[in-house]
Amino acid sequence: MKANFRKRILYSCTGLLAVAAASVLFAADGEKELLAKAQGIFKPLPVDAGTADRPLTPERVELGKLLFFENRVSGDGHVSCAACHLPSYYGTDAMPQAMGNRGVVLPRNTPTVFNTALQFVQHYGGNRVDVEEQAVKAIGSKLAYGNADLAEAEKRLREITPYRPMFEKAFPGETEPMTAANWGTAIGAYERTLLTPAPFDRYLGGDTAALSAQAKQGLDKFMSFGCSGCHSGVTVGGQMYQKFGVTQDYWNLTGSKEIELFKGRDKGRFQDTKKDEDAFMFKVQQLRNVAVTPPYFHDGSVAELGDAVRIMAKLQLGRDLGDADVADLIAFLESLTGEVPEQFANVPNLPVASKKN
Amino acid sequence: MKANFRKRILYSCTGLLAVAAASVLFAADGEKELLAKAQGIFKPLPVDAGTADRPLTPERVELGKLLFFENRVSGDGHVSCAACHLPSYYGTDAMPQAMGNRGVVLPRNTPTVFNTALQFVQHYGGNRVDVEEQAVKAIGSKLAYGNADLAEAEKRLREITPYRPMFEKAFPGETEPMTAANWGTAIGAYERTLLTPAPFDRYLGGDTAALSAQAKQGLDKFMSFGCSGCHSGVTVGGQMYQKFGVTQDYWNLTGSKEIELFKGRDKGRFQDTKKDEDAFMFKVQQLRNVAVTPPYFHDGSVAELGDAVRIMAKLQLGRDLGDADVADLIAFLESLTGEVPEQFANVPNLPVASKKN
Repeated sequence: MKANFRKRILYSCTGLLAVAAASVLFAADGEKELLAKAQGIFKPLPVDAGTADRPLTPERVELGKLLFFENRVSGDGHVSCAACHLPSYYGTDAMPQAMGNRGVVLPRNTPTVFNTALQFVQHYGGNRVDVEEQAVKAIGSKLAYGNADLAEAEKRLREITPYRPMFEKAFPGETEPMTAANWGTAIGAYERTLLTPAPFDRYLGGDTAALSAQAKQGLDKFMSFGCSGCHSGVTVGGQMYQKFGVTQDYWNLTGSKEIELFKGRDKGRFQDTKKDEDAFMFKVQQLRNVAVTPPYFHDGSVAELGDAVRIMAKLQLGRDLGDADVADLIAFLESLTGEVPEQFANVPNLPVASKKN
Repeated sequence: MKANFRKRILYSCTGLLAVAAASVLFAADGEKELLAKAQGIFKPLPVDAGTADRPLTPERVELGKLLFFENRVSGDGHVSCAACHLPSYYGTDAMPQAMGNRGVVLPRNTPTVFNTALQFVQHYGGNRVDVEEQAVKAIGSKLAYGNADLAEAEKRLREITPYRPMFEKAFPGETEPMTAANWGTAIGAYERTLLTPAPFDRYLGGDTAALSAQAKQGLDKFMSFGCSGCHSGVTVGGQMYQKFGVTQDYWNLTGSKEIELFKGRDKGRFQDTKKDEDAFMFKVQQLRNVAVTPPYFHDGSVAELGDAVRIMAKLQLGRDLGDADVADLIAFLESLTGEVPEQFANVPNLPVASKKN
């Protein structure tokens, strides 16, 4: 009986070892497979978002940084890019909806400025082709910057005379370089440097230890549930339009209110194009830094990330997520959080120039 | 004749040398005298503005820095100390008058936050005893922060739950440390570190090379014309009240407009005390960083430093300054410009917390 007992123990141990070995092998296989699948859907961040026709010269980036923080081009003297895209809140204002000139509430949420240059268009409705156009149209806007038009914005800009030599250096050879277009180009150049590499980038680069086991489970679910059908590419979203509210009207779950400016619920791209096929089409938001940039959705109607994840699964995929799913997905989304770039956290001294009452 | 000529030359040279030597001696004497006179009127900055009953513990300073940049305690979600005291404009907003909740124009100019803890009272009218009281009353103000009272401000503050452990550490042993009073103490502790040593401090410390010859001439005139009769002490002002407009009504020269809130011209301390003897009494403003913080006066009515200097001499001393006087005085005032403190230029990440629409 003693010998038998020993034999049984021996068999059991062998069996356990075999199972353990298989599981390690399986895990290693699964690990490789997960990484390969992710690499097919997502891309790590580049060094910057410069392009051949948008060269990020040091003169433009440096000038753009100053202009990003510049308040004096606005009507009330308190609106700047940085007034909504604050260094303190990961390039957002942490509020449901943005605020424009003289405290007017704008219809939509302020998205983070980080990595946004890599999205295929700008704004929730995609009515800005790139960050340069966004910056230009912002200063010409009565609601945002409180200027009647671009001419008024340019007049205010030119009053800050110490900028003139900087514009001349950044845009050499131009007769009048202090233009709204160059304002956009300079700010765009700066914004194209505001990228935030995150643990997920290291993972995509092959460092599988960069994600926790739970984050990897979340990544697996993010892909297998279908989230990555839309939230893909280098910015994990921001590469296409999609209807918000596939299975039912979005406001059923988000509690979104009617928007005065739109005389009803926000219909996304339709608000600009007035085409029926654009009704409720929104740019799929990028998800980089999503965990640190509440509140959520185009109107900031949802405060908690877990709620936003559940609502997206239900609205877009018709899926009811369990608590474990939500926790795993959040762990993955947290791996998209990068560091605030130093050239953003460190606010520059702006040129001293006088402004009369 | 040749010998006579040589003799004349020799005499002349001797005479010139004697004059030169006397003038060097005189200059050295004058240099010493000027420094001694300045040391009797002004004082160099201390390391910080902490006091025995306001200990600047690291926990309070660090928490105060976060709260200084915190927008979410305000009604419109966009007002913070830093919304008016911006890192980009030497702790001012570079505008004639400050802006409160929902873009309301406040009656007075935003003074720099730098070195202000060393002034004898706060605000142009002196209606805040110190920086702590200023910070507390700001969040309880409908105009500034858009809160009905301190209770509403405290409610908003407590909703940002990640602050709780920080308040507990900064104010150990208190049952409810998240109070408006502790908000003020923490922000005050941070502000008491925002001092900006300038070339003039090195000069007062004995380094006479820290000021240019013109700045020294300006200093000499600043004292002999009588400016330093009021603008004295460690903050070159900020140590007493004075009537603004001794020789005539100030608005004759500043072009100041009537203020709606005051139903007429700003009468300084009178607006708060309603006592006749306080009419047109204002705190003498500190002059540290004055060259980089236009526009000037309590209502920002004057854009250029040179104009402000001329107006002050005329209004307060009945003196018409010449161009050389103004240039010399400006050279001296420029020696009061310090560096933006690193703990102010570098904006912190604020705790992530959700806010629902």
